[in-house]
Amino acid sequence: MSFQNPVFIPGPTNMPEAVRQACYMPTIDHRSPTFGKILHPCLEGVRKVLKSKDAKIFIFPSTGTGGWETALSNTLSKGDKVLAARNGMFSHRWIDMCQRHGLDVHVVETPWGEGIPADKYEEILKADTKHEIKVVLATHNETATGVKSDIAAVRKALDAAGHPAMLFVDGVSSIASMDFRFDEWGVDVAITGSQKGFMLPAGLAIIGFSGKAIAAAEKSDLPTTFFDIKDMQKGYDANAFPYTPPVGLMNGLKLSLDMLLEEGLENVFARHHRIAEGVRKAVSAWGLELCAASPDLYSDTVSAIRTPEGFNATDIVTHAADKYDVAFGVGLGEVAGKVFRIGHLGSLTDVMTLSGLATAEMCMVDLGLDVKLGSGVAAAQEYYRTNPVAGK
Amino acid sequence: MSFQNPVFIPGPTNMPEAVRQACYMPTIDHRSPTFGKILHPCLEGVRKVLKSKDAKIFIFPSTGTGGWETALSNTLSKGDKVLAARNGMFSHRWIDMCQRHGLDVHVVETPWGEGIPADKYEEILKADTKHEIKVVLATHNETATGVKSDIAAVRKALDAAGHPAMLFVDGVSSIASMDFRFDEWGVDVAITGSQKGFMLPAGLAIIGFSGKAIAAAEKSDLPTTFFDIKDMQKGYDANAFPYTPPVGLMNGLKLSLDMLLEEGLENVFARHHRIAEGVRKAVSAWGLELCAASPDLYSDTVSAIRTPEGFNATDIVTHAADKYDVAFGVGLGEVAGKVFRIGHLGSLTDVMTLSGLATAEMCMVDLGLDVKLGSGVAAAQEYYRTNPVAGK
Amino acid sequence: MSFQNPVFIPGPTNMPEAVRQACYMPTIDHRSPTFGKILHPCLEGVRKVLKSKDAKIFIFPSTGTGGWETALSNTLSKGDKVLAARNGMFSHRWIDMCQRHGLDVHVVETPWGEGIPADKYEEILKADTKHEIKVVLATHNETATGVKSDIAAVRKALDAAGHPAMLFVDGVSSIASMDFRFDEWGVDVAITGSQKGFMLPAGLAIIGFSGKAIAAAEKSDLPTTFFDIKDMQKGYDANAFPYTPPVGLMNGLKLSLDMLLEEGLENVFARHHRIAEGVRKAVSAWGLELCAASPDLYSDTVSAIRTPEGFNATDIVTHAADKYDVAFGVGLGEVAGKVFRIGHLGSLTDVMTLSGLATAEMCMVDLGLDVKLGSGVAAAQEYYRTNPVAGK
Amino acid sequence: MSFQNPVFIPGPTNMPEAVRQACYMPTIDHRSPTFGKILHPCLEGVRKVLKSKDAKIFIFPSTGTGGWETALSNTLSKGDKVLAARNGMFSHRWIDMCQRHGLDVHVVETPWGEGIPADKYEEILKADTKHEIKVVLATHNETATGVKSDIAAVRKALDAAGHPAMLFVDGVSSIASMDFRFDEWGVDVAITGSQKGFMLPAGLAIIGFSGKAIAAAEKSDLPTTFFDIKDMQKGYDANAFPYTPPVGLMNGLKLSLDMLLEEGLENVFARHHRIAEGVRKAVSAWGLELCAASPDLYSDTVSAIRTPEGFNATDIVTHAADKYDVAFGVGLGEVAGKVFRIGHLGSLTDVMTLSGLATAEMCMVDLGLDVKLGSGVAAAQEYYRTNPVAGK
Repeated sequence: MSFQNPVFIPGPTNMPEAVRQACYMPTIDHRSPTFGKILHPCLEGVRKVLKSKDAKIFIFPSTGTGGWETALSNTLSKGDKVLAARNGMFSHRWIDMCQRHGLDVHVVETPWGEGIPADKYEEILKADTKHEIKVVLATHNETATGVKSDIAAVRKALDAAGHPAMLFVDGVSSIASMDFRFDEWGVDVAITGSQKGFMLPAGLAIIGFSGKAIAAAEKSDLPTTFFDIKDMQKGYDANAFPYTPPVGLMNGLKLSLDMLLEEGLENVFARHHRIAEGVRKAVSAWGLELCAASPDLYSDTVSAIRTPEGFNATDIVTHAADKYDVAFGVGLGEVAGKVFRIGHLGSLTDVMTLSGLATAEMCMVDLGLDVKLGSGVAAAQEYYRTNPVAGK
Repeated sequence: MSFQNPVFIPGPTNMPEAVRQACYMPTIDHRSPTFGKILHPCLEGVRKVLKSKDAKIFIFPSTGTGGWETALSNTLSKGDKVLAARNGMFSHRWIDMCQRHGLDVHVVETPWGEGIPADKYEEILKADTKHEIKVVLATHNETATGVKSDIAAVRKALDAAGHPAMLFVDGVSSIASMDFRFDEWGVDVAITGSQKGFMLPAGLAIIGFSGKAIAAAEKSDLPTTFFDIKDMQKGYDANAFPYTPPVGLMNGLKLSLDMLLEEGLENVFARHHRIAEGVRKAVSAWGLELCAASPDLYSDTVSAIRTPEGFNATDIVTHAADKYDVAFGVGLGEVAGKVFRIGHLGSLTDVMTLSGLATAEMCMVDLGLDVKLGSGVAAAQEYYRTNPVAGK
Repeated sequence: MSFQNPVFIPGPTNMPEAVRQACYMPTIDHRSPTFGKILHPCLEGVRKVLKSKDAKIFIFPSTGTGGWETALSNTLSKGDKVLAARNGMFSHRWIDMCQRHGLDVHVVETPWGEGIPADKYEEILKADTKHEIKVVLATHNETATGVKSDIAAVRKALDAAGHPAMLFVDGVSSIASMDFRFDEWGVDVAITGSQKGFMLPAGLAIIGFSGKAIAAAEKSDLPTTFFDIKDMQKGYDANAFPYTPPVGLMNGLKLSLDMLLEEGLENVFARHHRIAEGVRKAVSAWGLELCAASPDLYSDTVSAIRTPEGFNATDIVTHAADKYDVAFGVGLGEVAGKVFRIGHLGSLTDVMTLSGLATAEMCMVDLGLDVKLGSGVAAAQEYYRTNPVAGK
Repeated sequence: MSFQNPVFIPGPTNMPEAVRQACYMPTIDHRSPTFGKILHPCLEGVRKVLKSKDAKIFIFPSTGTGGWETALSNTLSKGDKVLAARNGMFSHRWIDMCQRHGLDVHVVETPWGEGIPADKYEEILKADTKHEIKVVLATHNETATGVKSDIAAVRKALDAAGHPAMLFVDGVSSIASMDFRFDEWGVDVAITGSQKGFMLPAGLAIIGFSGKAIAAAEKSDLPTTFFDIKDMQKGYDANAFPYTPPVGLMNGLKLSLDMLLEEGLENVFARHHRIAEGVRKAVSAWGLELCAASPDLYSDTVSAIRTPEGFNATDIVTHAADKYDVAFGVGLGEVAGKVFRIGHLGSLTDVMTLSGLATAEMCMVDLGLDVKLGSGVAAAQEYYRTNPVAGK
């Protein structure tokens, strides 16, 4: 393991040295007041990153998948109706989880590359005059396709239908990298993990609950103990966890939050947008297209790039790893073999990104694609140099 | 956070420098073959530590509590009967989890300080002629009371009753520190975490399943996705996880396993026993008694020490933290205020242990207990110097 | 290498985690302004630790020995007269260095265990009516014997004689642990290293020059380039070094200085005194004596402990390393085999110290000395618990 | 300090994670046998890297400059004659050091960009019939100009002249990156540092002495104690240093040597050559020229690139640091403002190098140079992809 080149996967992301060192702390007593000094700033900081005034924040030693399960198993009961769009691998998996937990999912099949169809949601919600739908699921950023959906539009659909369903948003690959507005969008549960915008190792599910979602936890009958938010809240009230907390990761999260908030969330988002734009300029220079169907859907954290018919996009990923020790993301599910993905979130500079683009070019040429060496790099260079980071 | 003194809590334990550094690895692609080179040695190494030939090993980004939930939710169905003894806080919590998952627990109330009453288990199992009891729970080492139960005896009870129930063992604070025999004892699910004998940060649930337990997973109706062993196994078969794995912690586990197996499990157990004996000599010299009712119950990983009537044992823990920056464990549940606990597992030497004993003495004298400074230290010193580590 | 037990050598000392991490920084461009932000706070901080208003501070990638050579080779010429007392191994080595550089040393032989005889210095200086003596050397803390000399008295001797000689002080094992007053004592060159009170790895010579010493550098004819303070000053003026600087170590020094100054120098000194007093109580309880002849000479950073006639004190050190993995210091030179040394400086707590004392006791008993287990520990415990750190 | 982008300075180089962690070890007793297990493998490994059978290796807590001083002050006496070529900043500084130590240097002024004129050396040596020249200095790789000189040719010059002078070679920026043959070339002293090919922080002078150079140490009259090889050898013979050794750095060196020798020296050299060739292809594509006058002089560790007349090359370096957080090297001395330097040694991949080249391009375009974005990158990409690392 040489660790020399950056990774270009859509998470876990490259970690800042200081964050990594903060995770790497020696053992402390997790029942001592010292832990409270890590825990509470984490909760407070996450709330700020979510742009919420009073969401209850929960952090579990788990992953985003555990965050999904936390959302469902704390608020719903067997047979409850859920509305969800399937437009990529991660929305697919969340739907699958719902079904395995005995929920009745109304699935809106959506082409992979499209965003959540808010108009269809509105139609369905309006038709649900008995308000049987308890929860609307929305994947903010489909990591598999590089598609960002419009959560504000989903909220509008709910409001237009006058529907009381809760809104659960998977922000695993958007939160802390792209704009997310818990309060303004009327989100009831927001879910993310440590290994994306927070630039930490995997190992934390990070979740925000609205008052409405907290209230729903009183009536849910899906069993869970590990992910029980009431136990967790009782723990927090005593500066503790109901079991052993992941102290080091949370110490890293505390620092990560300090860094993000000091930089300023809008600057963080602008930074991600700038890096992403460079990647998109390169894709365009290569004569390729994104999986995301239109510019309003382009994700600022990951680009899924379509390769020509008859070419196995996964070969690029395998070849990059084998020959250049560089990690890109493969296509998943329906787009397996059709796209390769460049993750561009977390601790990443324009300079690092250029090395990823240069590698992708070498791979494509090695594998016989009609791409000109240096072409994508040049397009990205031009964008980066003429759109410098503010103050540079 | 000065991190100068060792901790004397029963986990998370003091971490070896090299293990900590292994955890602290930079980001790699968790879908690359590199991850397989971490994953499979971990599975293989854990199997050896469990003394099993073919248990299936599962590692979740979670904790021991998540391990319990994995055991239950993969193998049982609502209303299933479970037999369990409550003899401390951790057996209590596991029973509570069963009940919250809709299981019907036959609780054998047992004095805190006693071990699992295998004879009562046998009686109950014999009476269960319809074999309605699906699982027998056993907490190998009650971390709250410092009591080690006899799992071989529980197996004998099952066998004597000719009962087909599965045997689930909580080995959170025993495995990798005290002798554990998965195959010989006929264990069906064994559960531990990363932060005890494996000397890692909290963040991993580490679990072994017998073939019988794996088979039971076909019929269970308790919902779980995050802790689903079938998804996990499918992941492992492809060198992966069904979601993002905790790569750094597993890299640390790989090294920890190498260290433990190179030292030799019997040496690891002897090392823990030696350290524990010194602590017990000190307790005796102080004129105090262990919570564990008899020597055969003494745990080699944690000692719960009873303080005199009228004295709040928790004061020792608070005082040690405040005045000496040393962490001991408080009494929990029924023995809260009645005992304080010295954890003596993981990466700990005789020399480090002496500093913990010396601190406990200062605290007890500071708080007015009739204990002679240096008395417990001297008793432990005499034991350690006359019972050196083999080869020293 | 297990790194589990603290070290009890008089340097390198135990390092705080945060300082160690600061040293461990990735590569930066040492010619960039970033380096200036490390360099200048280091110079400023060292000046404060020396209690000087305007000493010029120099930091070389070297050790205390290089600091001595810096002092001599920048200020003196072949044949220059130097006055020095030999009362231990380190004063002996400095004298040896003078002689090897062609200086004419007037050596005042002093019993090992005694401090610098300021009265004899005064006598000699008064007799030197032609002022041929250019420099008076003084070892503030003889690490070999645990003897602290009275530098203020040496200054008084110079003043009483009306002698213009410069005063060079070896503060390697005193500075940043014991009171040092560059300006008040009229010190001309003060020398220390990174691996003692500054709690860093070895690798830095840290030196302060008075204006008078700087002026002397104009006339010196001893050759040196690596240790040339004029080259170094020119470098500093351009935020640089005349060669590649040890950036990581200096980054660690910057943090160490922040920590020391935030704690407050007087608190740092009091902390060392408290730890040292506990050690001395133990020595007394063992029925042993310090090498230092009287209490006013006791060093707060290292204790050299005399063992009974006929006993080889070095055996304790070897035995402690072999059997207990604990490092003490051997006796050096004249006191080799007669003393063993306990270093008690740097990042060390009372609790850690008790483990060192307990180990020393086990070793002495193992080796047949008439020492009672727990006796020294009890004496130190009583001192520590009744003399708590302020605020505890 | 974000540490995100690699550095492209000719040392200190980017450090491998594992080497950095090895340096970052906790304190051990440097007088314990453990230190011997670090020291001796270091000496042995360096000897292998130098391709010598029996050179005596010395490691000082210092830098390459200290290595030069070690060479001179251990072997020469005031007034001794030395032959040296001045063809760059580092040869200039070594000459300056000689003069400051009272040596009589015959300087062969050589255009910066040219190598050592072995023919002129031969002429001078032949003319020195009395063999007054004691030492011939040769800078193997002029870091300032990116010029590699032919040491075998210098040896031939000495042999052709039948001259007994010793041959001292500065291999600071060549050893462990480019081929170096201590025995075959008849080198008497070879000097390097830790922060170049050994991929460590600055802080070690690493030096090899031939038997002849060792013998010369008996007669030298230049004073030195810190750099005294006889003291050092005496230390080594006792598993120690004459003062406190830089244990962590040496632990890192031990690992670095293991890595280099496991890779194989010829592979290490080929790896550096490959990376360097890509850089040179880029320079050529930019329409620029190297400072090195001809291909046989091209250094595989650093390229000094001439910019057009009237352009201040230093602006590229400042601009890269300010706008892109990337470090290149400035021109020094005679070539200040005329060249900028790209360091390409140590722990560096083709992918990392491409990001440096891309950055240089952006800087040049930003500053108005007539360079096409992507042009140099494309040339290097083509080279790298068609000249893969063996086995890729």
